[in-house]
Amino acid sequence: MRAVVYHGPRHVSVDDVPDARIERPTDVLVRITSTNICGSDLHMYEGRADFEPGSIFGHENLGEVIEVGSAVEKIKVGDLVSVPFNVSCGKCQNCESGFTNYCLRANKPGIAGAAYGFAEMGPYPGGQAELLRVPWGDFDCLRLPEDARSKQDDYVMLSDIFPTGWHSVVMSGLKPGESIVIYGAGPVGLMAALSAIVQGASQVMIVDRHPDRLRLAEEIGATTIDDSKVSPVDAVMELTNGLGANRGCECVGYQAHDAQGHEDNSLTLNELIQSIRFTGGIGTVGLFVPRDPGAPDDLAKHGRARFDVGDFWFKGQTMGTGQCPVKRYNRYLRSLIAQEKVKPSWIVSHDLPLEQAPAAYKNFDAREEGWTKVVLHPAQAA
Amino acid sequence: MRAVVYHGPRHVSVDDVPDARIERPTDVLVRITSTNICGSDLHMYEGRADFEPGSIFGHENLGEVIEVGSAVEKIKVGDLVSVPFNVSCGKCQNCESGFTNYCLRANKPGIAGAAYGFAEMGPYPGGQAELLRVPWGDFDCLRLPEDARSKQDDYVMLSDIFPTGWHSVVMSGLKPGESIVIYGAGPVGLMAALSAIVQGASQVMIVDRHPDRLRLAEEIGATTIDDSKVSPVDAVMELTNGLGANRGCECVGYQAHDAQGHEDNSLTLNELIQSIRFTGGIGTVGLFVPRDPGAPDDLAKHGRARFDVGDFWFKGQTMGTGQCPVKRYNRYLRSLIAQEKVKPSWIVSHDLPLEQAPAAYKNFDAREEGWTKVVLHPAQAA
Amino acid sequence: MRAVVYHGPRHVSVDDVPDARIERPTDVLVRITSTNICGSDLHMYEGRADFEPGSIFGHENLGEVIEVGSAVEKIKVGDLVSVPFNVSCGKCQNCESGFTNYCLRANKPGIAGAAYGFAEMGPYPGGQAELLRVPWGDFDCLRLPEDARSKQDDYVMLSDIFPTGWHSVVMSGLKPGESIVIYGAGPVGLMAALSAIVQGASQVMIVDRHPDRLRLAEEIGATTIDDSKVSPVDAVMELTNGLGANRGCECVGYQAHDAQGHEDNSLTLNELIQSIRFTGGIGTVGLFVPRDPGAPDDLAKHGRARFDVGDFWFKGQTMGTGQCPVKRYNRYLRSLIAQEKVKPSWIVSHDLPLEQAPAAYKNFDAREEGWTKVVLHPAQAA
Amino acid sequence: MRAVVYHGPRHVSVDDVPDARIERPTDVLVRITSTNICGSDLHMYEGRADFEPGSIFGHENLGEVIEVGSAVEKIKVGDLVSVPFNVSCGKCQNCESGFTNYCLRANKPGIAGAAYGFAEMGPYPGGQAELLRVPWGDFDCLRLPEDARSKQDDYVMLSDIFPTGWHSVVMSGLKPGESIVIYGAGPVGLMAALSAIVQGASQVMIVDRHPDRLRLAEEIGATTIDDSKVSPVDAVMELTNGLGANRGCECVGYQAHDAQGHEDNSLTLNELIQSIRFTGGIGTVGLFVPRDPGAPDDLAKHGRARFDVGDFWFKGQTMGTGQCPVKRYNRYLRSLIAQEKVKPSWIVSHDLPLEQAPAAYKNFDAREEGWTKVVLHPAQAA
Repeated sequence: MRAVVYHGPRHVSVDDVPDARIERPTDVLVRITSTNICGSDLHMYEGRADFEPGSIFGHENLGEVIEVGSAVEKIKVGDLVSVPFNVSCGKCQNCESGFTNYCLRANKPGIAGAAYGFAEMGPYPGGQAELLRVPWGDFDCLRLPEDARSKQDDYVMLSDIFPTGWHSVVMSGLKPGESIVIYGAGPVGLMAALSAIVQGASQVMIVDRHPDRLRLAEEIGATTIDDSKVSPVDAVMELTNGLGANRGCECVGYQAHDAQGHEDNSLTLNELIQSIRFTGGIGTVGLFVPRDPGAPDDLAKHGRARFDVGDFWFKGQTMGTGQCPVKRYNRYLRSLIAQEKVKPSWIVSHDLPLEQAPAAYKNFDAREEGWTKVVLHPAQAA
Repeated sequence: MRAVVYHGPRHVSVDDVPDARIERPTDVLVRITSTNICGSDLHMYEGRADFEPGSIFGHENLGEVIEVGSAVEKIKVGDLVSVPFNVSCGKCQNCESGFTNYCLRANKPGIAGAAYGFAEMGPYPGGQAELLRVPWGDFDCLRLPEDARSKQDDYVMLSDIFPTGWHSVVMSGLKPGESIVIYGAGPVGLMAALSAIVQGASQVMIVDRHPDRLRLAEEIGATTIDDSKVSPVDAVMELTNGLGANRGCECVGYQAHDAQGHEDNSLTLNELIQSIRFTGGIGTVGLFVPRDPGAPDDLAKHGRARFDVGDFWFKGQTMGTGQCPVKRYNRYLRSLIAQEKVKPSWIVSHDLPLEQAPAAYKNFDAREEGWTKVVLHPAQAA
Repeated sequence: MRAVVYHGPRHVSVDDVPDARIERPTDVLVRITSTNICGSDLHMYEGRADFEPGSIFGHENLGEVIEVGSAVEKIKVGDLVSVPFNVSCGKCQNCESGFTNYCLRANKPGIAGAAYGFAEMGPYPGGQAELLRVPWGDFDCLRLPEDARSKQDDYVMLSDIFPTGWHSVVMSGLKPGESIVIYGAGPVGLMAALSAIVQGASQVMIVDRHPDRLRLAEEIGATTIDDSKVSPVDAVMELTNGLGANRGCECVGYQAHDAQGHEDNSLTLNELIQSIRFTGGIGTVGLFVPRDPGAPDDLAKHGRARFDVGDFWFKGQTMGTGQCPVKRYNRYLRSLIAQEKVKPSWIVSHDLPLEQAPAAYKNFDAREEGWTKVVLHPAQAA
Repeated sequence: MRAVVYHGPRHVSVDDVPDARIERPTDVLVRITSTNICGSDLHMYEGRADFEPGSIFGHENLGEVIEVGSAVEKIKVGDLVSVPFNVSCGKCQNCESGFTNYCLRANKPGIAGAAYGFAEMGPYPGGQAELLRVPWGDFDCLRLPEDARSKQDDYVMLSDIFPTGWHSVVMSGLKPGESIVIYGAGPVGLMAALSAIVQGASQVMIVDRHPDRLRLAEEIGATTIDDSKVSPVDAVMELTNGLGANRGCECVGYQAHDAQGHEDNSLTLNELIQSIRFTGGIGTVGLFVPRDPGAPDDLAKHGRARFDVGDFWFKGQTMGTGQCPVKRYNRYLRSLIAQEKVKPSWIVSHDLPLEQAPAAYKNFDAREEGWTKVVLHPAQAA
């Protein structure tokens, strides 16, 4: 089959690789019809993560089931399914209590959590390919309604970024009627903004410096803050009578850099602490890593940041972190799409065939104006 | 009246000062019969906080009401009351939603939260004195049952350290049947251990290096870890099948130092991140400060710490912080004392008259063996 | 002053009565500019509640502060305020834990909870009058922003029906993305529908038989079910793939009657149990009463209903009940109005001077077509 | 194999039946070493439930795995396991959100939830037998630690009554420090009392009239109320300063009868409403049924009760109902047993071989003094 393969920093190609296939009785085999390039793919693309050359990218996958293992009893051939980026067994303590993001059995001992096509997240090839093997398919696949065949660009967001943005808002502790500020208007940040609106925020502020992203945020009614022009902390204070926002979301991660391009893994976290009021909460879904050999300073190389714990504590703030447990939310978000309450495809800038993945990576990584979100389509839905 | 007055680093005396008195119609005047020296008093005693010379210490107060303002309608003269260390108005948004630790009206604009006898926590004299003015007395005073007259050393813990220890466990997210590790077996850490037991922890581990404190922890059934002898992270791992504890409490604060005496404000936080499993939660009630001119390094002077955000995020952990909202818990903990489910006075090592406060400060600050908790008694209960 | 006075079943008039005035130092005196007639006023109007002749109606009040007691420190003369229908002291255990609907000090011993102009809810005259005394004014009054002067018909909903509808949805346990069915499209039911939408419901169904009410529900996007034409249970099943709704709200109360006019206090509760799926939740804000001498059957006279506990239990459903704690929500809902996320005035059919109250009661009680919600305006806002 | 078979009202015998065996690749086959007779078995034993003659009893099962299906990957031959009474697939929406008590795939369409050896709970033979087939064994079996071989009478409570009692307390909304009253001191009620203590209740009251049961309750520190001698509502009021308990548990069910033997399915529910204070919560785990042909009155035959909705609503109480989702709690309770925080076997009165089941049923059903809990041991643990 054809697949997007990593060959080293900033070098990907679409190669012929062995077909994915059923390996265990609980596997499901999916022909991928839609698969996104994610911002977190770029950490790997840039060589800033331990991604093995030869690995296949792709953890935001949607497609049609073409074969099921002998013990699969719920998912059927022909089902159109969304595949959460988390690989999870459904049987361990974490899975059964809703922490499918930290499955105890899908990765190697000592590491909880696994994902497709992701550095350190287990041996699972990604879905930027014609076929994808889904382990524990009955537990992991989410069946989609009939309208999904014509609305794939909406439903494809269910495998990662819509739930991930949603999770950041949930972790922030948002209650309806409160205000929230989101750092980062990339695809995840934009989904966080959409999620905050659906969850009843009275005021959604979002910080970024890319005009195309800020424009998308405005389209759904968020208040945008261009941090290349103003201090985002000052702007939030001004918009909130000097109190700060009730809640905040970190949707940037360890490669955060200021408007001058200086990288600092504590930047957005510390700005959030300043932007949020006493008693406020922060949900951090931007990626942070325990080791980062390519970091610009020694502390960051060891996964540490100059964290403003003094203010964080003095203001009595809370923080939730980590990858999103997609299954905790995807059924509910599916209903919101099906009932036309939300249309997450509004961020999609490019629908491309698989073969154009290398150029797409290049442009998306360079933050080329207008490349806000790329959906690859290895196959057509039946 | 007589009161314990701060005169500069490591210099306190018991002085004659003007009597506390009713100043506003909602005030209550309390004759203090029991008032503790708190670990956080030591930050001020050592000159490591902006505590004005001339200030009166004391935020863990219990006593008898001797006068009430004209608008006080619930609290009566003769009531024995516990006074939460938080000064709170009962009328602002934070108070009414249970965040009396971050009252918006008791401190100066921009700073939420106030306390008696505490640096930067507003203009409220402390209760290590014969008399204490309690603003918003109807809202702030907790009436005690009759048995409190003979069990003051139990009930006096309701004004701060019992709720504070309890709060750290609540913020950690502990569920009954889970394991928890507590860093610091000072009075707050010991109360956290007691709280974890009452809240149904299956396993309570506690880290310290002072034999007298560890002994007290053992008395209530906690598993003790002496970090002057073993790595606490290794010890927790060994006790939890290599998974780490479900939950953790930080009960030390910014002046944490290792067994060799090296101070590092990130020490306990980073050890907690290592000691807690994936999906675990941390409750931080040890004090951290936005500015610390006396800190040993530049980062800490600005309230920042070398925080292990990489592992924190990778493991999907959560953290809650800040001072305790005493009123959220004190009624419930009062019932536990009254029904003899708990006896928090087990940590008290010294019951002393007010006049012996200077020596008590000296010994407690020096961590003299056996000085685990001092209760001062300025007056006798009627 | 002029006030709407009850004189017996279906007999009200606007009378001269003694002016409301400051009686205690914590009182606030409000000149009422907007005050609604509520569906629960009709139980009293019809003589189906123990409402003393001579009592003044009115618990949905908004107005301008014209005088404050000597111990009032937050609310100022000139403030435009919304007055929650709950009278609450702010100092008892229930108030301080957010149950201002069950204040332990505002009513007589043994009865928790009080309200203005309400049978058995304490000695508090209502606000369908020129003036209203607000006890514990600092705690109870919610200050409104400047735009409230021109948007009174929106903000007036904050004192009761918007929070009450909201509370029914909260008690149902709704999570974003779930479906919900509301029984009763009166003002509270319509507010429940609006609230469900703001809280992220994917599907909001509402049951009633009055075309004007159903039309209002449709205007905000709810799916309407006319139970004079179809079985509401069948209709809900059909709309939810035979599973039933996730959640339900009871917004009718003990005088529920079927389309043929037969009164049955178990009607809506049992229909809800049938309409909701296994594991579902029900929020009941429609009024039920311990004693109802005017009831059509003996069981109902004693406040009992033929409740379908067998199915309720078999399906593992939950139920929350009771009056709404307005203060738990009104600040948040105020922000939603101020930020123009909601416009609760869409249900208002009549803005009338106080003097027209008698005719308004008559028409509203008769469910005259088009009389969906009446706002009385005793005075003009300054 | 030998098994306890139902042959009609009050007629059971131990018969030879075909061996249970692996039928599907996800099955696990367990040799039962401990299996309890449950109070809910008695409803079936008495013919008050639709239990098919020929059915095998037994839903509280513990044993050793002797064979696993081809797709079973976690559970191993030789494991000692507790089998939750809920049969649940682990793949449906309800299972994955923690409602294994309402699995959507284990029973027939339209009925959520299944159990072993239980009327209307699906086609699953019970475990009062030498062998038990456990469908979806990887998801449903809970592995037990080594000490379980010698502490089976403790761990056997994990399959039903310990989690069920625990669930009633959780559904009541108990917070540490609150008071609670439990109606029914049968095995489930006793477990509710134990659970309330572990969850931090300050005061646990329990109502029954059997001296042997009340004695067991006293042994763990509960306050007992003998409702054959006093009014339980009055007794609770007296113990709670006239306020009523904060929380209550219904652990009796639809066959509740008063001290004179008069059966009334609303009895305990209405007494709970009276015993609980305003804002209180009730957790109902006693069985209620949609249809009860053997009921003493017409309303009850249709599953309805004369429910005191007027007081329930007026006091703003909440109620949760239904069977317990055992998996939500059993891991945590396992830890409490393993760490010797609880010893639920204290209620066991009889350890018997399987062959003595008929006499055990007879005595337990007759509430013979001293027959508080029977554990049958079809096989010995290896």
